[in-house]
Amino acid sequence: MKRNIKVERLNQRPLEQQEIELVERKGIGHPDSVADGLAESISRALCQEYLDRFGAVLHHNTDKTQIVAGRSKPAFGGGEVICPLYILLTGRATRVFKEEEIPVDTIAIKAARKLLVESLSNLDVNNHVILDAKIGMGSSDLRDVFGRKVPSANDTSFGVGYAPLSQTENIVYNTERELMNLKKSIPAIGEDIKVMGMRQGDEINLTIACALVDRYVANMKEYADTKREIVEHVIDFAKQFTSRRVFAQMNVADNIEEGSVYITVTGTSAEMGDDGAVGRGNRANGLITPNRPMSLEATCGKNPINHVGKIYNLLSIEAAKQIAAEVQGIEEVYIKILSQIGKPIDEPHIASVQIVPKEGVDIKSLQDGATEILDEWLGSIPKLQQMLFRGELSTY
Amino acid sequence: MKRNIKVERLNQRPLEQQEIELVERKGIGHPDSVADGLAESISRALCQEYLDRFGAVLHHNTDKTQIVAGRSKPAFGGGEVICPLYILLTGRATRVFKEEEIPVDTIAIKAARKLLVESLSNLDVNNHVILDAKIGMGSSDLRDVFGRKVPSANDTSFGVGYAPLSQTENIVYNTERELMNLKKSIPAIGEDIKVMGMRQGDEINLTIACALVDRYVANMKEYADTKREIVEHVIDFAKQFTSRRVFAQMNVADNIEEGSVYITVTGTSAEMGDDGAVGRGNRANGLITPNRPMSLEATCGKNPINHVGKIYNLLSIEAAKQIAAEVQGIEEVYIKILSQIGKPIDEPHIASVQIVPKEGVDIKSLQDGATEILDEWLGSIPKLQQMLFRGELSTY
Amino acid sequence: MKRNIKVERLNQRPLEQQEIELVERKGIGHPDSVADGLAESISRALCQEYLDRFGAVLHHNTDKTQIVAGRSKPAFGGGEVICPLYILLTGRATRVFKEEEIPVDTIAIKAARKLLVESLSNLDVNNHVILDAKIGMGSSDLRDVFGRKVPSANDTSFGVGYAPLSQTENIVYNTERELMNLKKSIPAIGEDIKVMGMRQGDEINLTIACALVDRYVANMKEYADTKREIVEHVIDFAKQFTSRRVFAQMNVADNIEEGSVYITVTGTSAEMGDDGAVGRGNRANGLITPNRPMSLEATCGKNPINHVGKIYNLLSIEAAKQIAAEVQGIEEVYIKILSQIGKPIDEPHIASVQIVPKEGVDIKSLQDGATEILDEWLGSIPKLQQMLFRGELSTY
Amino acid sequence: MKRNIKVERLNQRPLEQQEIELVERKGIGHPDSVADGLAESISRALCQEYLDRFGAVLHHNTDKTQIVAGRSKPAFGGGEVICPLYILLTGRATRVFKEEEIPVDTIAIKAARKLLVESLSNLDVNNHVILDAKIGMGSSDLRDVFGRKVPSANDTSFGVGYAPLSQTENIVYNTERELMNLKKSIPAIGEDIKVMGMRQGDEINLTIACALVDRYVANMKEYADTKREIVEHVIDFAKQFTSRRVFAQMNVADNIEEGSVYITVTGTSAEMGDDGAVGRGNRANGLITPNRPMSLEATCGKNPINHVGKIYNLLSIEAAKQIAAEVQGIEEVYIKILSQIGKPIDEPHIASVQIVPKEGVDIKSLQDGATEILDEWLGSIPKLQQMLFRGELSTY
Repeated sequence: MKRNIKVERLNQRPLEQQEIELVERKGIGHPDSVADGLAESISRALCQEYLDRFGAVLHHNTDKTQIVAGRSKPAFGGGEVICPLYILLTGRATRVFKEEEIPVDTIAIKAARKLLVESLSNLDVNNHVILDAKIGMGSSDLRDVFGRKVPSANDTSFGVGYAPLSQTENIVYNTERELMNLKKSIPAIGEDIKVMGMRQGDEINLTIACALVDRYVANMKEYADTKREIVEHVIDFAKQFTSRRVFAQMNVADNIEEGSVYITVTGTSAEMGDDGAVGRGNRANGLITPNRPMSLEATCGKNPINHVGKIYNLLSIEAAKQIAAEVQGIEEVYIKILSQIGKPIDEPHIASVQIVPKEGVDIKSLQDGATEILDEWLGSIPKLQQMLFRGELSTY
Repeated sequence: MKRNIKVERLNQRPLEQQEIELVERKGIGHPDSVADGLAESISRALCQEYLDRFGAVLHHNTDKTQIVAGRSKPAFGGGEVICPLYILLTGRATRVFKEEEIPVDTIAIKAARKLLVESLSNLDVNNHVILDAKIGMGSSDLRDVFGRKVPSANDTSFGVGYAPLSQTENIVYNTERELMNLKKSIPAIGEDIKVMGMRQGDEINLTIACALVDRYVANMKEYADTKREIVEHVIDFAKQFTSRRVFAQMNVADNIEEGSVYITVTGTSAEMGDDGAVGRGNRANGLITPNRPMSLEATCGKNPINHVGKIYNLLSIEAAKQIAAEVQGIEEVYIKILSQIGKPIDEPHIASVQIVPKEGVDIKSLQDGATEILDEWLGSIPKLQQMLFRGELSTY
Repeated sequence: MKRNIKVERLNQRPLEQQEIELVERKGIGHPDSVADGLAESISRALCQEYLDRFGAVLHHNTDKTQIVAGRSKPAFGGGEVICPLYILLTGRATRVFKEEEIPVDTIAIKAARKLLVESLSNLDVNNHVILDAKIGMGSSDLRDVFGRKVPSANDTSFGVGYAPLSQTENIVYNTERELMNLKKSIPAIGEDIKVMGMRQGDEINLTIACALVDRYVANMKEYADTKREIVEHVIDFAKQFTSRRVFAQMNVADNIEEGSVYITVTGTSAEMGDDGAVGRGNRANGLITPNRPMSLEATCGKNPINHVGKIYNLLSIEAAKQIAAEVQGIEEVYIKILSQIGKPIDEPHIASVQIVPKEGVDIKSLQDGATEILDEWLGSIPKLQQMLFRGELSTY
Repeated sequence: MKRNIKVERLNQRPLEQQEIELVERKGIGHPDSVADGLAESISRALCQEYLDRFGAVLHHNTDKTQIVAGRSKPAFGGGEVICPLYILLTGRATRVFKEEEIPVDTIAIKAARKLLVESLSNLDVNNHVILDAKIGMGSSDLRDVFGRKVPSANDTSFGVGYAPLSQTENIVYNTERELMNLKKSIPAIGEDIKVMGMRQGDEINLTIACALVDRYVANMKEYADTKREIVEHVIDFAKQFTSRRVFAQMNVADNIEEGSVYITVTGTSAEMGDDGAVGRGNRANGLITPNRPMSLEATCGKNPINHVGKIYNLLSIEAAKQIAAEVQGIEEVYIKILSQIGKPIDEPHIASVQIVPKEGVDIKSLQDGATEILDEWLGSIPKLQQMLFRGELSTY
């Protein structure tokens, strides 16, 4: 079998040299990210349960969690949640296999509670959340599950990936990660963070929204001080990724005179008016990048066995990273992989590699290396699946 | 006020000349599109109600509808729906204004029923759907609503648009539209269609998934005949958009020998296992285009007054179309507009226009024309809003 | 087999001769009655479906419907429903039998819609109701269903019945029925009626609550006129049942001066604040009678095959009626039948008949007749079931 | 003001001397009792919150909780819950008062979790329950709340009570209570108990259903032993209440040969197929007594301020107890109190006292004492309310 891999030169100016660049990351406590996290954690828990019981992962897709915002009344020193968040876990999963019933809903709820505790440290999961589940019946065919064959693609769809990250992308991604570290010393930092990066030539502007947690902020002065401290930290932190000038602002809609600032009881805006849904936030690489090709397939919650919308996105990213790192002479590499429903997942309809070579580099000199790496990855989907089971691949 | 509009040359090979191109469109009966349609129709109904009662559109966002799939048993000649679809309408809307209560849920349900009837002609809305609503309270500030001022951006986010469509894009988009026409003579065509277009050099491959409606298909032979007829029609139809070779396949996972084919009772896969959610399908221009910049903001269901995620996406598309049509010498034009929360929506943080000029054309000769058109559109947001109220802008 | 039937003299003054008597009836549009009606109509529809498909009624119990009230703004001439009623249909039913799936939810929803239309003529079922269903899986054992044996009691519980009705009971019951007739000429009469009858010696006081329908009442004067007309009609109507003095009042909490009267958009208080549940309203004979023995088993929605809570209540009533009618010398007869789980339903643990004989009548002269009739009924449970399938027995 | 209290002789044989008597009690873990408990605990928590915030109890009624059964797979030594129970808390409550928002849903959920933990010690509230809330808006009128006036009856309805308990009633009630004690030494006893007592002449038969908890029962032999131990304990225990012969059976539907016995994971049948609802189980005195007058008003969850369905039931029971205890010469006393909507709750439409005097006692000698005690209670409704706030009155 020879895979349909096409490597082509992409004749465009590398993003780093373009005038304008937009990059966004939603933090792990953003309502859309929480929905993503729930979907993925439920899928992982189901994988583990299926493996434990049957030695194989059965059919499931839990990629449609919906968070309906609550209602709260934050106040310096500590406010209250008036109406709990309503979270609907949906999707489908194999409920019966070899005449054994699998407690799908119980597993889903357990996994969801765990994720909520991890992602939203100030949320009282017992009393501030209504956790509902409507998980339908999926079915798994015995032959498919225990056959030796490579699974067939569940759908005709595609995944995309690219490498390396630009400076702005690195900054945006890592700023959110850093704030989660900083939270240890500044507990007022809530997990609901949005970092919007806009590079205009050699100026990088970061607009950060961060839900501060009311019980850790005594008054308006502390609020303003905390904000200043965070902004200064971020600007300083960003310097390791760029020599460009970095500016940052936080919670720009605040009106301190009128007493209108961004505080929350729980650290997430889902407590008051902001709904969340799977697949509406970060792409599988943790970023939203309108200057880059993106897939609209939600990665989170999909089964890692035959759902190409998940597998091809993650595989494209990993392969692109490796190509960019190991094949010399590459400025940027973009991968798109298209499946055809019913065909083996390791034989995509087409796998397109587009490369922006470094100046003076001939695309021909790069084709073999790139092809080989991607081919290797396509042949190693089970390895990728193992990484997913073990939680080694982040998906949002 | 001078708007921050930057026009830059995009130094890349036009998509039409690249080797590989992927394009997808989900038809109006695809679960994700139905969710989009519901979200948008509810927003429109609310806009109309608010305008009728108060002369102004009040705050709302209804962009989080969730469709949980049902369970069905299709059969040639007519099967049955075992478990109804569950549809959860969520979001928030102003429920009380000037001490008057607005029947938000009743309006939402009425609009949702209407959309379902229009989008899924074979669905029995009375008995095959559980229509639930959890729409929270939004609030509208009297000064904001009736002030003379331009509304402020609700968030820091961006919209993107481009023009013109490529051949493949045109084919993919119009194929689905054409099948909705063809439905008049072939009633077995369900509204749940997915057209995946893959262009490799000068070959365009269309992979069509189309849920046939069981009551209009007597047996396996009729099924095969209908499929053949549709595929032939599509190939013929596509010729008006390209001189490239066009191939098409439909329902490729069918196994006619084993009797496993894609028929449905209602014309949508949501009847059996396929969930749907807002913002997971087509972008505002009706396509999914990984080779193009895309926004992840769901356009459907957002309020058209201050939600930049909606306004900037639609505005970028319209402006790009006009620039491509009226400014001579343009191969491709890409627009990205970034807001900053709290700032007037007609004064974006940045509006970036990237142009791939026709060969030999100097970007300088295009800048004034492009700037002027985009500036004009940014100054005409109320006009765009009117188009939305009147249903003149399609959003998915 | 000799059934354990005990006939005993009840040494008490007949209710008609006691000083005080309380009787209540909730009309068919009262939220609790609507819940009862939904439960029963779903059970009937399932029975019919099971009979059509398999020739036998399979296991089900749908006796737990819950109505969560909506929110409305009635107004003379026609108001509006602000938030729809939420109705949750629950219970369990056999979903798969002989490898055939039964569309339980679809059947339930269809039956529920029909009942709502019949019971609440002014309710817009499409837009004023959210109809949800969470019907669990029941299971039916092949041997039980098609065995020749009498079914076994599903539980240890009892049913009660008595006859004849007192004057006050007759008046209360028939007043509500008559208002449903009167509705043809006075369309403002809503189906949500509550008739409370209190007899003190020889005075019977009726307190009627009746939700008038706003669109048929132009103004306060019409409201007052309609009320007067209804009250006069009721007093006149009641005379056929008694020679005692009858008084009646309607909507006594009205405050016409302050403009606070009992009008509704839909004819039921469930539109605004009054929830409803199965088994909380009328007993199986259509009345609530604290002066009489009552069972707390909800009759509505239970399966008529082996649920003694349903069968024994209905059977007791029918047998009591027949005994009172056919055995000479009886003032009052009370029947209580107790099952034991797992025993054949036609062999109750005990069937107790208590008789208040007419003056001078010896209980011994009544025992054989009463025993025979009750024994006959216990042997004719299949006949009773047929009456239920055909809708000939009212249950609330 | 002279209250309309009528004391009349009830000319009937005391229940203790009648041939047949039926009595039932559902234990605190029975699905209907759990629903009752939830409803009442939420009302209590709201009362406390309203008192703390405003010094007065605001309008609410939370008497419509619905429990939809889950699905489980019990097994000796410990099985698992497959699908969690779904619990819907409904009703209405004042959400805003004096411009302050009260976190009604959060309070309800917190109270519900606490009740579940207390009532079902083997239920994993975090993972085996979906706790949903749809609590509507109630409204409280400032004048009503802080006026000096006695509250007006919310409805035209009645309460009933009687005293003393018969031997069988005492046995049935206390058997369940005793099993909750015995649970300390026999942890396999689940809280879902149903005790059905049937007295036929001088034989009292107890039929006990008790959900044993699987993790505390190693095998069938232990099951049988445990059952035997419980039955023996109960028979012995009952002797303190009667000199009649007492028989007892437990879990009579067990078929030990076929391995079909009554074990559960959580101690309640709600884990598998048995739904529960408020007001469907015990009356306010903790019993179901078809030989006694009963009210169908659910006592649990109703507001203790003006809901006569709650107040009059509890007051009738307390007054009857006191009359039976303090007025000499009484065999049985029955009280029925009827309100009229809008009238002060301490001035019922009628309060009827029916007394079965001891042999040879003239009713006239009892009338003053009975009237005085009931009049005193009607004048002491605030005292009764205080007892409810403090949880001193059991309601199911």
